[in-house]
Amino acid sequence: MSPIVSVFKNPPDGGKGYHRDFRVRWALEEVGQPYHLRLLSFSEMRRDLYRRELHPFGQMPTYKDGDLVLFESGAIVHHIAHEYAGLLPSDRNARARAVMWMFAALNTIEPCISSGSTGYLPLRLHELADTLGDAEWLDGEFTAGDLLMVTVLRSLRGTDLLKETPMIQRYVDRGEARPAFQRALTTTSPLAQSA
Amino acid sequence: MSPIVSVFKNPPDGGKGYHRDFRVRWALEEVGQPYHLRLLSFSEMRRDLYRRELHPFGQMPTYKDGDLVLFESGAIVHHIAHEYAGLLPSDRNARARAVMWMFAALNTIEPCISSGSTGYLPLRLHELADTLGDAEWLDGEFTAGDLLMVTVLRSLRGTDLLKETPMIQRYVDRGEARPAFQRALTTTSPLAQSA
Repeated sequence: MSPIVSVFKNPPDGGKGYHRDFRVRWALEEVGQPYHLRLLSFSEMRRDLYRRELHPFGQMPTYKDGDLVLFESGAIVHHIAHEYAGLLPSDRNARARAVMWMFAALNTIEPCISSGSTGYLPLRLHELADTLGDAEWLDGEFTAGDLLMVTVLRSLRGTDLLKETPMIQRYVDRGEARPAFQRALTTTSPLAQSA
Repeated sequence: MSPIVSVFKNPPDGGKGYHRDFRVRWALEEVGQPYHLRLLSFSEMRRDLYRRELHPFGQMPTYKDGDLVLFESGAIVHHIAHEYAGLLPSDRNARARAVMWMFAALNTIEPCISSGSTGYLPLRLHELADTLGDAEWLDGEFTAGDLLMVTVLRSLRGTDLLKETPMIQRYVDRGEARPAFQRALTTTSPLAQSA
């Protein structure tokens, strides 16, 4: 039985992968693990049964694999990265740093973006560009940390902020060019049988 | 050699444990791992050397253990929880759920609080209270998920929001009553020798 991922039935972005459920699909495509989709509308996410069985906050995404039920896109990507090969390096310290970049994406960069005020965001992007330097990814090979960072940063696509930090722009481009990213955008995975 | 944790030399909260460095100290006290402190002022955190060697965003906390350097409080607590016994259950699925609550604390609850607008916060607190029910902790025994959730929620101490959700208030009380929490607040760990 493949894991089941809850995703938007009619995503507000029209399927361009800007919602948090996309992070989980991309991660599953990176590790090559087949999955089923559970398509849900906003009103279905708000139902008591959904909250009780899958997501106490009535949101997306959720992940169900046998007895294990998870919510929070970061936690689901973390689980996939630890369960299957392909998103974490084998070296112990490098793994810890990959997890660090996962948290940095969701706790330092994303809050700057979603707060709506530009605030610290230009500074953070420059600091991130300094860290990246000429490297392809944040810490050696592509990891779950890059996956989350790219999903966070690509929401800036088309803004002046991203144009002003071309290193970050190219980093996002590299992420989006990955075959697994493209598959996650276009693949129609089978639907889960149960509601 | 014990790990070295960067903390505020003169914490703006006067040492009441409301800054993110406290999460790391509490985690180390829970697992019983001795540590050294590196006391830094705001201006020292902004220095190029600090950014280059410890924290690209010039913030608190950082963690150094031999060759491993980490930033992001969530990632450091995650590392401590995986490195030492005491903050994660042994069951594989329960461990994944503990990590889920770590992300939920920092990515769902904390953004509601730090955004400054009440917004979804009352709803999230009620949903969290429903999830907690009569249980002592979020998922069985105390985990790194509870540790982060309590540090996030206790910033609401004294507000009407917390008074209106007494289950959450008692949950925070239980966290703060833990001996390791109290030690983290009061223990004066030895200072790191190097700058």
